[in-house]
Amino acid sequence: MSRIITLTTDFGYQDPFAGIMKGVVSGIDPAATIIDLTHGVTPQDVTGGALALAAAVDFFPDGAVHVAVVDPGVGGDRRPILLETDRACFIGPDNGLLSLAANRQRLIRTVHLSNPAYHLRPTSTTFHGRDIFAPAAAHLSAGVPPEQLGQTVDTCEALSLPAPEEHAAGRIAGKVIYIDGFGNLTTNVRGEDLERFDPKSVSVRTGDRLIRGLSANYASAGTGNYLALVNSWGFLEISRCDGNAQAGLDARVGAPVLVAGDAVAVGAK
Amino acid sequence: MSRIITLTTDFGYQDPFAGIMKGVVSGIDPAATIIDLTHGVTPQDVTGGALALAAAVDFFPDGAVHVAVVDPGVGGDRRPILLETDRACFIGPDNGLLSLAANRQRLIRTVHLSNPAYHLRPTSTTFHGRDIFAPAAAHLSAGVPPEQLGQTVDTCEALSLPAPEEHAAGRIAGKVIYIDGFGNLTTNVRGEDLERFDPKSVSVRTGDRLIRGLSANYASAGTGNYLALVNSWGFLEISRCDGNAQAGLDARVGAPVLVAGDAVAVGAK
Amino acid sequence: MSRIITLTTDFGYQDPFAGIMKGVVSGIDPAATIIDLTHGVTPQDVTGGALALAAAVDFFPDGAVHVAVVDPGVGGDRRPILLETDRACFIGPDNGLLSLAANRQRLIRTVHLSNPAYHLRPTSTTFHGRDIFAPAAAHLSAGVPPEQLGQTVDTCEALSLPAPEEHAAGRIAGKVIYIDGFGNLTTNVRGEDLERFDPKSVSVRTGDRLIRGLSANYASAGTGNYLALVNSWGFLEISRCDGNAQAGLDARVGAPVLVAGDAVAVGAK
Repeated sequence: MSRIITLTTDFGYQDPFAGIMKGVVSGIDPAATIIDLTHGVTPQDVTGGALALAAAVDFFPDGAVHVAVVDPGVGGDRRPILLETDRACFIGPDNGLLSLAANRQRLIRTVHLSNPAYHLRPTSTTFHGRDIFAPAAAHLSAGVPPEQLGQTVDTCEALSLPAPEEHAAGRIAGKVIYIDGFGNLTTNVRGEDLERFDPKSVSVRTGDRLIRGLSANYASAGTGNYLALVNSWGFLEISRCDGNAQAGLDARVGAPVLVAGDAVAVGAK
Repeated sequence: MSRIITLTTDFGYQDPFAGIMKGVVSGIDPAATIIDLTHGVTPQDVTGGALALAAAVDFFPDGAVHVAVVDPGVGGDRRPILLETDRACFIGPDNGLLSLAANRQRLIRTVHLSNPAYHLRPTSTTFHGRDIFAPAAAHLSAGVPPEQLGQTVDTCEALSLPAPEEHAAGRIAGKVIYIDGFGNLTTNVRGEDLERFDPKSVSVRTGDRLIRGLSANYASAGTGNYLALVNSWGFLEISRCDGNAQAGLDARVGAPVLVAGDAVAVGAK
Repeated sequence: MSRIITLTTDFGYQDPFAGIMKGVVSGIDPAATIIDLTHGVTPQDVTGGALALAAAVDFFPDGAVHVAVVDPGVGGDRRPILLETDRACFIGPDNGLLSLAANRQRLIRTVHLSNPAYHLRPTSTTFHGRDIFAPAAAHLSAGVPPEQLGQTVDTCEALSLPAPEEHAAGRIAGKVIYIDGFGNLTTNVRGEDLERFDPKSVSVRTGDRLIRGLSANYASAGTGNYLALVNSWGFLEISRCDGNAQAGLDARVGAPVLVAGDAVAVGAK
């Protein structure tokens, strides 16, 4: 009955912080299966962490416990929370980090992890991953019901991605929201936003780079060329074949991306 | 009966891609044991990934399933394949990535992973690690026979390491083929290639650096000194005691390495 | 009866070295649970590795086997050792790496891992993590008693952290001993060393930066401000709210840190 516990943090790989959380888990529920999603979130980048977690949760079996720690407000006012959905539990700081992932599922309850009986003692003000989140996940995995870990509450912080803007003539003004380790630029334009366009007519502009057409994969554009495609997370992505689009375009999160194209003819399929 | 599944990729540690693959595996075969070999292969460096995998496979128990993803051609013509050997299964893109490791064992069959019943749906054109390779490994681990995952085929792409060249007077002209995180330079000259030389007479030259003699270990050369030894993978390696040879020599993969020495006297042992 | 085996190394994340150690373990004791503490110790930084391990061991359940490899002297004179304590076993090179962690527990015996029956063959002179330490940990986990792995010995190398110096008027002259991936500066001044001061009066100086007062957490100082607090390892730490103190102060391990304050009034509590 033990569970899968995933970890998503901005701890990096230099220090033993994530390993210490695993030690805590294994002391409480030795049978839990711990899976690292990533510890490479940019320090203090709550939105980046939220996107990484949201991209992953659909691929885990029901019952998983997802722990995320990108937590610049640790030890202050922000609450430690648990979100229980119909498919999973999410544990972390109440700063929006969990919200994009939890919103993909049906919320059952939100619990403020306020019950000190399930915290490590002494409880630090700087490492709740070790002292509050890891113990909560492990106790859950060992069978403690969520509502026993603290007080059920009505609300929690939610993060919302910037929506792309619809412009005249069907143009879409989007933004880069995530840049992966290959330098691929994920935008906030979804694959379904592009269905209004005749695919051959689509063009994507960022900075002074214009990309014509949507590619089916990375390789077809030819080495060194920039391309646009709908990526494995369902978003429009700008990439460079056998290269690094981020470096080549000197792009940042927030960079504007403009999509244009001819409307699909009415009645066409 | 579940298996060890190893992962070798160029995904890096910033993103949740490897974690997502583990989610897929755990949904299909929760009892599989997943071990990361490395996710730090240089992006799109098929040869580097192949060498990393080849260095590792002999140290895993029989029955392991090795998944590798360094896959610039994903979603295009290159096939997703499985190589079954007498000791393991190898799963990944048919671009040579698996070949150096599989060649260390006896090949039983090659399967094109063409059976869509074992792919995730929808199947992306950009992340076969998630949609084809992880499911194949997990189904194998859960007991599905290899030949059910697709069509048996006759051939697959093979990668061959550049062989060192034999020169006059027993000199060997080799190359750097791999540089590890310590900055050690692995060459394509094998330990057995050096047996023809009187060990004390061996000299190794790269760029304008000349190293005399073979060392038994890193420390014996003395801090800051360059040294040559036969490394744990069985290759001639150039290293710097308590330092980083790559940085000190500004070396790259492909850099020439010249080995010379006096022949062992005939009849000597 | 299998055990948790933790790994702490300076292998980095580019190469398959840690993965190879896991392969060796899984071949000897498939039921062992392997947990990475970190592979991100700075190459050859024995003290950094010792601190990482010491920070972690209290959070693991009794019976864990902690393997650490920061081993510039591999293959030379330094012995491979095992330290058995009342709570754990520690395995690695006899260069002080294990000592800070083992000193937190009660030592039962020290074993020189000299029994070749428990080494991989052939045994390399450059990768004892694979050939001596991983097998020892796995055999322990599988039930082999420590004293069978080699000869019991009387002494081993111990590392000692520089103690802070007590100056006139109750000032403490400490040093930076560890810098984490967030750029937080851990000093050798312990939380209990600060109890002599009226907390509001404490000031911490490093370089030309003066920090007044101790913070309860990172956020309370306000974005961009430097702060001092007692961190989750129990040491005085210099940090920067939503920033990176190491980068901002251009600090190094060894940098002096001066703590001053008014003595707590006699009889006060």
